[in-house]
Amino acid sequence: MDIIRTPADMQSRARAMRAEGKRIGFVPTMGYLHEGHLSLVRIAQEHADVVVVSIFVNPTQFAPGEDLDKYPRDFERDEQACRDAGADIIFYPSVDDIYAKDQSVYVEEEKLSCGLCGASRPGHFRGVTTIVAKLFNLVLPDVAVFGEKDAQQLRVIRRMVRDLDFPVKILSGPTVREPDGLAMSSRNAYLSCEERQQALCLRKALDCAETLYAEGEREPETVRKAMLEVINEASLARVDYVEIVDDETMKPAETLRRPTLVALAVFLGKTRLIDNTVLG
Amino acid sequence: MDIIRTPADMQSRARAMRAEGKRIGFVPTMGYLHEGHLSLVRIAQEHADVVVVSIFVNPTQFAPGEDLDKYPRDFERDEQACRDAGADIIFYPSVDDIYAKDQSVYVEEEKLSCGLCGASRPGHFRGVTTIVAKLFNLVLPDVAVFGEKDAQQLRVIRRMVRDLDFPVKILSGPTVREPDGLAMSSRNAYLSCEERQQALCLRKALDCAETLYAEGEREPETVRKAMLEVINEASLARVDYVEIVDDETMKPAETLRRPTLVALAVFLGKTRLIDNTVLG
Repeated sequence: MDIIRTPADMQSRARAMRAEGKRIGFVPTMGYLHEGHLSLVRIAQEHADVVVVSIFVNPTQFAPGEDLDKYPRDFERDEQACRDAGADIIFYPSVDDIYAKDQSVYVEEEKLSCGLCGASRPGHFRGVTTIVAKLFNLVLPDVAVFGEKDAQQLRVIRRMVRDLDFPVKILSGPTVREPDGLAMSSRNAYLSCEERQQALCLRKALDCAETLYAEGEREPETVRKAMLEVINEASLARVDYVEIVDDETMKPAETLRRPTLVALAVFLGKTRLIDNTVLG
Repeated sequence: MDIIRTPADMQSRARAMRAEGKRIGFVPTMGYLHEGHLSLVRIAQEHADVVVVSIFVNPTQFAPGEDLDKYPRDFERDEQACRDAGADIIFYPSVDDIYAKDQSVYVEEEKLSCGLCGASRPGHFRGVTTIVAKLFNLVLPDVAVFGEKDAQQLRVIRRMVRDLDFPVKILSGPTVREPDGLAMSSRNAYLSCEERQQALCLRKALDCAETLYAEGEREPETVRKAMLEVINEASLARVDYVEIVDDETMKPAETLRRPTLVALAVFLGKTRLIDNTVLG
């Protein structure tokens, strides 16, 4: 497994692999890898000859006052995890090599990114689309794999690929969960013991939505209220949002009779966690 | 020479050429080709095995009220000109195939594009960067060639390539002029006989700037005033802007002791023409 540290080296290596006719699979990450990331590496392996994992804590996707500085990092552990998973290349650039001091070009998605996390985290998705566009141009992947836990991100990236015609196929991997149902996240490392226990309220709220839907409920507002009640039972939980949106437009759903994304963001103490499920 | 009409066909053809190890040269145009465009085709031929010319009157780079509807078009003539110039492929897509009805992703340059044409034509450069990003992803060029007549566009595109890491080398071709000095432009077709004659005031104003500079003048405002006087001698001319800016930052130049872009846009009747020169 090779570690590539500069954008120029990554792009010339990608060009060389392309010239050899190799299919490149790509898993972009912010590091502190868990089984969720590694499951994406395995999906990439099924669709490519060479798998590149990028590890880059991207400052432009953190809103002011967020956890950029304390975001967990452990490159040695990540390196070992990538090696064990059979990744071929880690792309591990520095912030200064990725962003020019006078960077002035950004990629903006203006519809799907407005609500949910986009509303709570100003500039977040502009940071995401811009870094992913840059990484696509550096890694030149045939396929890139994103986690379904970041539901809105996945939809925004798919839209970017469609609207800017990136020659990249986007695949997704299902959310990987701890045995008790908590979605794996690098940010779970922030949780105190008590917060970790109460963090189950996210999954419980989604279970509640799924149960109501299975029982025939089709009114989004009824489901939403029931979910809020579940979360409010957790004393350390503070709701950022609970949204039930049309899976295509990401606008508030008027009915559950079309494919619907149920997504939520909840603070446990200072730690903001997200999770989601799709109904219909 | 082949004519490719859909984005999907263009991208798969580009992938196939890449897989064969061919270097792709690209000249994006809005058609109604003149010798300026064809000179760019020749530059592309020097740097590539296959040259693709796109012909697409891009609606998103026209500001409201501009000349989108009457922009001159003559595909048959363009086709013959490309054939004569030895281009290999014309990419000639429809607006509906290029833009989804719910397109929501755009590329924005936020510094170099603010002044000059960007100030006069709201949204123009967002339209330019977005379509060029799309075309780069469809044509997959190794090199792309832009005309120096569109000085600000050239700088904005170079910045986009740098900031989004497009794997494309940008080359430029010098402005091609009519025998009397008027810069070639598809929009010259709009000019009445009298307007055509008075359109020389753009080149004359640039000549004036170059002469003053050669004589040792280093004060931008002195040069600018002299240029305005030259233009005001043309009774049908109405100045949109005459700007003297730092060639790197595109901000108003405080001195001519650094490389400086002298750029102007002038209306002759309803026709807006641009021209420029670089001092130092």
